[in-house]
Amino acid sequence: MASIEELLKDKGISRPRAHRRCDDRAFDQLRRASITRGYCKHAIGSCLIEIGDTKVICAASVENKVPPHLKNTGTGWVTAEYGMLPASTNVRTVRESSKGRIKGRTHEIQRLIGRSLRAAISLKDIGERTIWIDCDVIQADGGTRTAAITGAYVALHDACRTLVNQQIIARNPLLEQVAAVSVGIVGEQACLDLNYEEDSSASVDMNVVMTRSGRIIEVQGTAERDPFTREQMTVLMDLAQHGIRELIARQSQALGIP
Amino acid sequence: MASIEELLKDKGISRPRAHRRCDDRAFDQLRRASITRGYCKHAIGSCLIEIGDTKVICAASVENKVPPHLKNTGTGWVTAEYGMLPASTNVRTVRESSKGRIKGRTHEIQRLIGRSLRAAISLKDIGERTIWIDCDVIQADGGTRTAAITGAYVALHDACRTLVNQQIIARNPLLEQVAAVSVGIVGEQACLDLNYEEDSSASVDMNVVMTRSGRIIEVQGTAERDPFTREQMTVLMDLAQHGIRELIARQSQALGIP
Amino acid sequence: MASIEELLKDKGISRPRAHRRCDDRAFDQLRRASITRGYCKHAIGSCLIEIGDTKVICAASVENKVPPHLKNTGTGWVTAEYGMLPASTNVRTVRESSKGRIKGRTHEIQRLIGRSLRAAISLKDIGERTIWIDCDVIQADGGTRTAAITGAYVALHDACRTLVNQQIIARNPLLEQVAAVSVGIVGEQACLDLNYEEDSSASVDMNVVMTRSGRIIEVQGTAERDPFTREQMTVLMDLAQHGIRELIARQSQALGIP
Amino acid sequence: MASIEELLKDKGISRPRAHRRCDDRAFDQLRRASITRGYCKHAIGSCLIEIGDTKVICAASVENKVPPHLKNTGTGWVTAEYGMLPASTNVRTVRESSKGRIKGRTHEIQRLIGRSLRAAISLKDIGERTIWIDCDVIQADGGTRTAAITGAYVALHDACRTLVNQQIIARNPLLEQVAAVSVGIVGEQACLDLNYEEDSSASVDMNVVMTRSGRIIEVQGTAERDPFTREQMTVLMDLAQHGIRELIARQSQALGIP
Amino acid sequence: MASIEELLKDKGISRPRAHRRCDDRAFDQLRRASITRGYCKHAIGSCLIEIGDTKVICAASVENKVPPHLKNTGTGWVTAEYGMLPASTNVRTVRESSKGRIKGRTHEIQRLIGRSLRAAISLKDIGERTIWIDCDVIQADGGTRTAAITGAYVALHDACRTLVNQQIIARNPLLEQVAAVSVGIVGEQACLDLNYEEDSSASVDMNVVMTRSGRIIEVQGTAERDPFTREQMTVLMDLAQHGIRELIARQSQALGIP
Amino acid sequence: MASIEELLKDKGISRPRAHRRCDDRAFDQLRRASITRGYCKHAIGSCLIEIGDTKVICAASVENKVPPHLKNTGTGWVTAEYGMLPASTNVRTVRESSKGRIKGRTHEIQRLIGRSLRAAISLKDIGERTIWIDCDVIQADGGTRTAAITGAYVALHDACRTLVNQQIIARNPLLEQVAAVSVGIVGEQACLDLNYEEDSSASVDMNVVMTRSGRIIEVQGTAERDPFTREQMTVLMDLAQHGIRELIARQSQALGIP
Repeated sequence: MASIEELLKDKGISRPRAHRRCDDRAFDQLRRASITRGYCKHAIGSCLIEIGDTKVICAASVENKVPPHLKNTGTGWVTAEYGMLPASTNVRTVRESSKGRIKGRTHEIQRLIGRSLRAAISLKDIGERTIWIDCDVIQADGGTRTAAITGAYVALHDACRTLVNQQIIARNPLLEQVAAVSVGIVGEQACLDLNYEEDSSASVDMNVVMTRSGRIIEVQGTAERDPFTREQMTVLMDLAQHGIRELIARQSQALGIP
Repeated sequence: MASIEELLKDKGISRPRAHRRCDDRAFDQLRRASITRGYCKHAIGSCLIEIGDTKVICAASVENKVPPHLKNTGTGWVTAEYGMLPASTNVRTVRESSKGRIKGRTHEIQRLIGRSLRAAISLKDIGERTIWIDCDVIQADGGTRTAAITGAYVALHDACRTLVNQQIIARNPLLEQVAAVSVGIVGEQACLDLNYEEDSSASVDMNVVMTRSGRIIEVQGTAERDPFTREQMTVLMDLAQHGIRELIARQSQALGIP
Repeated sequence: MASIEELLKDKGISRPRAHRRCDDRAFDQLRRASITRGYCKHAIGSCLIEIGDTKVICAASVENKVPPHLKNTGTGWVTAEYGMLPASTNVRTVRESSKGRIKGRTHEIQRLIGRSLRAAISLKDIGERTIWIDCDVIQADGGTRTAAITGAYVALHDACRTLVNQQIIARNPLLEQVAAVSVGIVGEQACLDLNYEEDSSASVDMNVVMTRSGRIIEVQGTAERDPFTREQMTVLMDLAQHGIRELIARQSQALGIP
Repeated sequence: MASIEELLKDKGISRPRAHRRCDDRAFDQLRRASITRGYCKHAIGSCLIEIGDTKVICAASVENKVPPHLKNTGTGWVTAEYGMLPASTNVRTVRESSKGRIKGRTHEIQRLIGRSLRAAISLKDIGERTIWIDCDVIQADGGTRTAAITGAYVALHDACRTLVNQQIIARNPLLEQVAAVSVGIVGEQACLDLNYEEDSSASVDMNVVMTRSGRIIEVQGTAERDPFTREQMTVLMDLAQHGIRELIARQSQALGIP
Repeated sequence: MASIEELLKDKGISRPRAHRRCDDRAFDQLRRASITRGYCKHAIGSCLIEIGDTKVICAASVENKVPPHLKNTGTGWVTAEYGMLPASTNVRTVRESSKGRIKGRTHEIQRLIGRSLRAAISLKDIGERTIWIDCDVIQADGGTRTAAITGAYVALHDACRTLVNQQIIARNPLLEQVAAVSVGIVGEQACLDLNYEEDSSASVDMNVVMTRSGRIIEVQGTAERDPFTREQMTVLMDLAQHGIRELIARQSQALGIP
Repeated sequence: MASIEELLKDKGISRPRAHRRCDDRAFDQLRRASITRGYCKHAIGSCLIEIGDTKVICAASVENKVPPHLKNTGTGWVTAEYGMLPASTNVRTVRESSKGRIKGRTHEIQRLIGRSLRAAISLKDIGERTIWIDCDVIQADGGTRTAAITGAYVALHDACRTLVNQQIIARNPLLEQVAAVSVGIVGEQACLDLNYEEDSSASVDMNVVMTRSGRIIEVQGTAERDPFTREQMTVLMDLAQHGIRELIARQSQALGIP
């Protein structure tokens, strides 16, 4: 695997100056990542993904129904829901069920997860059924949506395996592994995999979803404070690609695939 | 600790005939119980409680506000919220936030947890603040509400300790340990601590909340199919008292108290 | 009918000391109870039940539908809804329709009424239809949920009679009469049928639903302030049994049955 | 009191031809009307109004708050809420609290009642408080909104009396009695005070609210099927005026005023 | 076209005294009215109606469904929805979607528009389909509901034309043109077509919907401050009839009909 | 202004092959764009922006309140709301107010608009007040969210001017012009400013928000069907930059600035 320095050198961009991250990581270093498969007894596929102090339970369920626009098309659907336990955050988060409505942020995240997973799968090949992926944040320390995507892929992978093994679907619908990571500019330094403290002070925040082959499924970059240049965007994309390559490796390891 | 047989003999009730439970437990045997304190990094008190395959995260938060009826009374409040992860159940549970309303069952359970905890504490002594206890079911296999109460007490205990240690409140407001268990009649046999399979086929289902000193905080008995006699109720109460005594012991152990 | 004193003597429990109730009733005395059948012109069965100053309209309706889990099973359903008129309470109660959500207390009560009624009837014998029982509190002075259950049985009874008379169902599905009463500990005295003033100051509050044959359908006991002992629970259950026996007699009288 | 025939003759309109109403009333005859004052123990003013088989409980409550636009103006507010018991109608009406939203019809009616009552009172003279009038239909047989207005005035009258007697407000804020009635065209015949059967087949339906002095507070006429002429409108207004005069007399009688 | 003075003279009512309106119109003068047909590219019929500074987009859509009570009757339905852009009013109006509920005023208005349009059409002749008319206020300066009705008729007219031209329905279901206007009493002067300033200070406010042949579909008169007499009502109706006649002429012109 | 061909040549990327767009535009050609300032009489700043057949009303309002987290900080807030008229789309869109909840898509868009505008302004310099920007889609033909941002900037610009002119705020808080455009890959061809037809068949869809100086505020790229390469992303960003430069010119022209 090429190092980020080689990647940057290729583009003629000099390596960022030394910079101290709040948890002493290198600017291009992921947090400790672990994936525990089969975390939920009742789910057809599930895992607990931990990226630093961020912990997300990802679980797949299968329902023999599809949204109205897919009825009688022979095509299936993959959708995701995202939630945070009230105690997962620094300051208690009010339960969305108590407020009676889902926050815009939640909508945004679960739509992102759903789109990302649908790019990883042939919907035709799952038949007229819906695979639900529930991503529930047990503890939040930055990067919950990207951890959710990386873990959700594992849950989806195991769900598909089981559906094939049980001969419910004829062939494996998975196209390619998918993972996601956040990158950002913190104090003028481009950094990989921001934790909560970094995220709060970042001037630019970008979430990138990529396939194993390095193609982009989704990129969402936001100037939280200062607009950023095309050059900065290139550096951030390089960092993200580097991080996703590592996360894909963790997924492979957990799934026992090459 | 007196055995259930001694308890029953005292009342002149003969021991129930041999009966095979689906998981081979004795009729008066709890499932394996474990309590992991400090499970949530951000919470002032928390635990993961596991009773067999039922797993609940209980976490306390403190808010410097009280409900309107307590304003300017110097008295505090303890309240609870209960939720189930969609993937916690056999068949996926629809997220209450997506439905935009809390189910009656949830309301019923969180009111029960709140009442039970308020009986364990002197509200005067916590000052004008609210302690929220969030009980989130990660995996459900029967007895989630009673596990939630037993775990919630541990979270509350640690929250109070911290408030006292940080000199936010002057003296420990806790009155007595509180725990809860379910009992029921399954195939004419009174049983302690029903799992999901037993619960589904029980003709009577009873949840009991008691203090360490054996006094009753709450009893809720329901004839799911057949009305039950006063005598059956007595047997069930004996079983519950026996189980709660053991759960109190687990709490003490986890909390490092005698 | 055995007096409560005889019941207590049987158990070797001495009669409670003299105690003055706010309305001068004896500790084991019900409030004045009356049941006016056929109160609602449009309902297939209905009554106005008055227990002291508590007044509840109970009305049955039949719908040719069942909840999804009963479709094509040939089995019916009985469910209840409970409401309070805004002006029924001491301080005006905000209308739940205006708040856009049903309170937890309401959910709890209507689930209790529904369960109690389902224990009184053979759901198989009503065919695939739902009997709705609406219990609307016109005036509240304590014990509204137990009055609702006692009155709801009468509405259900008349609905079943009509269904049989109109040959819509083949045989009477009713199993046994059902009634309910509240008991509680007020100032250390166990009392039957608490009014609002007593209820507000009770340290223990218990609602009991029983059949005519004295078997328990539901028992819900709550320590509002002080946990209570097993012995106190026994006394309360005796009082409840005594009260329910009388209420069953009133039902019989209203229904013109022996 | 002038008869409707005299009224019509004055305008040179000939008396409608003989017509048989479904309940044998004359075309200009009200249904039996009765007003029972003090129907709700907890309300500061209340009544049960019965107009034929239509029964509405009207109850007043006082709150020491005003809507935001009246804060610090020294002026009060009168508002109304309207509800129907599920069993009040021929076919059971779904509870609005269960649906989580108030129907357009309900909104329309409660706004009408509120406007009508505010025209009967000097808001300045009630000070910065809100008088809520709850109108709850116990049984519906046509004309529920007009019965509600007529009864609501009685509840409001008694509430004002009490506020004056308790010296909470300095002088009686009531300006003039207010009552309401429905009129309509049924089978080409203009009729007073339609019952449900007539209302369902009416081609024109009109609700009129008037003061004791015969001035109009509100008129709402709707062509349910066929548009109507100016002349028909005049006849309907005459009928309404006649009916309201009688209803004002019933109010006076119930309130013990001349 | 007869002038309002002639109309009044016929009834022996003397002409109101000179009165200066805030925008210098005569008391019986409409504001400048214009109707732009085909305003919405995607709608089957639509217009922008401008009455003074009030601007409303009216657009028709056809759906091949009917409300439950019309299923399998061969009869169609016409219904309306009404909304205001937040920036349409003097002070920004909170978006109803953000509040999660429709205001009573909106309900009232959209029910009025729907009823008015249904009186203009033979529902039988549109077959089992629903025509939705959306009326969205772009800018509000008084009289939005009456402008909406007048514009909605144009959208409905064009929708029906298209349905006939496309041979979806066999014959034109339209019965008669329909238009609406507001009238009111401002400073003791009866005025036609109130703008916002006048509406805010009017003591009586009346909305009238009429057909081309001068018959009444709906009349809603409200005493905002002072009850009004039968004589005042007559003057207001005359004014309304006069205004509606002019609006019908504008519709005819826009629609290119005689 | 540099042409896109020059931009691409600079990067050594060859010009895309000839490709016929459904409306005959060149691949790097915007649709006809027009901005009508002062469109809403009541708003402090507003415009109608038309990009091809997409029409959006953008209007600013000022409120003397800020969200809780900004209270007593002296800092202001800019937020946006987005809506679509039901008739704006090809198939009628159900009104969000009728459904009682805002769709995820709407949440996503209004959050995007808000973030984009906040990057264009110094929140410190507007003082403790909120500027609301309402973006209401009158007609939709692709690119409504980017049109909304481009138009919203104009409304915001005019609102700030007025606040400065009225000496409500001391100095102009605007930092830099902001505009947005969509780009995408349609049939393997990268295209600028997709209309609805193109958007529906695009395999990649990207929305870009930039400042006048060419810095990025937000980039959101989504693989609707096929993941895309880093090289394709570069071409899309070039196209977007080119389009935004033109849109900024239109804004300047409308605003009368150099």
